Amino acid sequence: MSSPSADASGEPKRGELALIRQIRSRAGHLRSSALRLGIGDDCALLRPHPGHELAVTTDLTVCGRHFRLDWHTPESIGHRALARGLSDLAAMGAKPVAAFLSLGLPRELATPKGRQTGANSWVTRFFDGLMALADACKTPLAGGDLSETAIPLADIVLIGSLPSGTALLRSTARPGDLLYVTGTLGGGAASLPHLDRLAARLAKKVKRKSSGLNGLNPAQIPKELRELLARHLYPQPRLIQGARLRSRNLASAAMDMSDGLSSDLAHICEESHVAAEIDPTLLPIHPGASLEYALHGGDDYELLFTAKAGVRVPRKIAGVPITRIGRILLARPSRPAVTLLTSEGPQPLKPKGWEHFS
Amino acid sequence: MSSPSADASGEPKRGELALIRQIRSRAGHLRSSALRLGIGDDCALLRPHPGHELAVTTDLTVCGRHFRLDWHTPESIGHRALARGLSDLAAMGAKPVAAFLSLGLPRELATPKGRQTGANSWVTRFFDGLMALADACKTPLAGGDLSETAIPLADIVLIGSLPSGTALLRSTARPGDLLYVTGTLGGGAASLPHLDRLAARLAKKVKRKSSGLNGLNPAQIPKELRELLARHLYPQPRLIQGARLRSRNLASAAMDMSDGLSSDLAHICEESHVAAEIDPTLLPIHPGASLEYALHGGDDYELLFTAKAGVRVPRKIAGVPITRIGRILLARPSRPAVTLLTSEGPQPLKPKGWEHFS
Repeated sequence: MSSPSADASGEPKRGELALIRQIRSRAGHLRSSALRLGIGDDCALLRPHPGHELAVTTDLTVCGRHFRLDWHTPESIGHRALARGLSDLAAMGAKPVAAFLSLGLPRELATPKGRQTGANSWVTRFFDGLMALADACKTPLAGGDLSETAIPLADIVLIGSLPSGTALLRSTARPGDLLYVTGTLGGGAASLPHLDRLAARLAKKVKRKSSGLNGLNPAQIPKELRELLARHLYPQPRLIQGARLRSRNLASAAMDMSDGLSSDLAHICEESHVAAEIDPTLLPIHPGASLEYALHGGDDYELLFTAKAGVRVPRKIAGVPITRIGRILLARPSRPAVTLLTSEGPQPLKPKGWEHFS
Repeated sequence: MSSPSADASGEPKRGELALIRQIRSRAGHLRSSALRLGIGDDCALLRPHPGHELAVTTDLTVCGRHFRLDWHTPESIGHRALARGLSDLAAMGAKPVAAFLSLGLPRELATPKGRQTGANSWVTRFFDGLMALADACKTPLAGGDLSETAIPLADIVLIGSLPSGTALLRSTARPGDLLYVTGTLGGGAASLPHLDRLAARLAKKVKRKSSGLNGLNPAQIPKELRELLARHLYPQPRLIQGARLRSRNLASAAMDMSDGLSSDLAHICEESHVAAEIDPTLLPIHPGASLEYALHGGDDYELLFTAKAGVRVPRKIAGVPITRIGRILLARPSRPAVTLLTSEGPQPLKPKGWEHFS
């Protein structure tokens, strides 16, 4: 059902009802012109603008695979769950119309415990993070579902709108196109060892495991490290950049980078039936990250795109730098899908997305 | 992302890649005219017909809450996950356009084990059940996501299409309207004690717990019981009935019954700001079910709808009986939301949806 409400296992519990009311009241204030009916009926209703089509994406975020309760604050988990879907819309050049959230929570996270109140319970703080990004990206929460689960998880659905036939695809890169990325690479993954260290320090200090890094005083964390951590904890979906690449006809193909450059570029090559080469000296490596992180680290949520060689791609879009990092080649049986140009000559670059939590 | 593919925790494992390939090849054969791009890019693309709007619903199905591995065959779990979403579309009178599936599976269900092959592994049989219903309802699988989870779960997203402004809502019932249901009530819930008994018998026989009822010889189950079990294991979403009620302007309000009549009718009353009364002697109780099951049992996935008193509602739509069971009243402070007319006079009917697995 569209409304987060009782599931088929029976009437919702008192806490669940309160949670549904909280979600509904917080979701009510944002509207988008294409959203005709939000939470409260069997379905939400969307009416796309004439001449537009809708882009739809779903992303399942699971504790232990995509986040850890001792690393991530509830706000960061909510932000990241929504950011994954918004980043997929950005990659097509679509503008968000509505989000849907299916949330599975263990009872202890769904209700206030200990000295918590409704206002600072885990689930309220999760929604604080999710709704702050939803507000910033003008994305109304239009429905979803709730269930009790042994471990927390969130499946997020994003629906976006764009003029029919103009979506940026993975399958339309052609030999001779140049290869670009937005922003910087490797910061998301380079945060992880720091998060691990900070979580261990905190666990020693407060002897609890599932707080996120809430107990840490931010003033005790150096500014550069705070900025690096933010790349992982609060990634910014490149919606403006994706929409600009689409509306100005700049990109010939695009996708978002969630698994890491080597893995994601391999997807473009596969879907477009082309090969690619990367010049590592051109990579915009994030301060504090290494080449290894920039090549294979995930979680940057930057856009990877191609443009015809003759197209003048701006150096920045809305403050975010755009960097040329390589080019698209003809696929040949003897040629690896992705080649890295090193000082010892060209080397095949195998896709090896970062194993975050394994 | 739209394609079931590697999640942010890194490259997919060999088994996961094989599973993605299997899903993609099985999903490829169905198209709907509004689906422009299915699995394989960051998003799927939908282009609604001019003058149409889209209905969107999400349903989270979790092991232990919505199904049990020792009660339900994999085919039934796949069927039921999709049926929940299709039933929401039916309640609005919408025609399915596309489904999206986010699937979380423990490793042992995602890959063949023991004497299983790829063709009869748990996940293949789950897709057999899901795709059989998708085919029957002409609903292409257009995307989704995969992740390893401790317990199996499926979040299903359904998108349907209908002429703008014609959706059947929960909020538009008015005092004086008559109250109807499709099909029969109570069969879904009345199956549960039988499933429990059969699972216990099977567990004794084969000493394993998570087989579903696969080890049972159907010939050993009496025909009437098999028909009753089918109500729970393979509910039929009332898509044709919902579309007819909408296109012929027959219904003033509608919703689907997943939680049970007493709970679901309370939702209509709340959203429409009305009260209702039910005549229990009119209820189309499923053979083998009781009045209690018909009033409070969930999982029937029939439609509950209202019609103006002057409207001639057919006695059957596409072979499914339509039964008048009560009427809508003015809401009054002194009046319960739902009243049951008993031989001892009117009694308040509290919502108490069935607690399936608790």
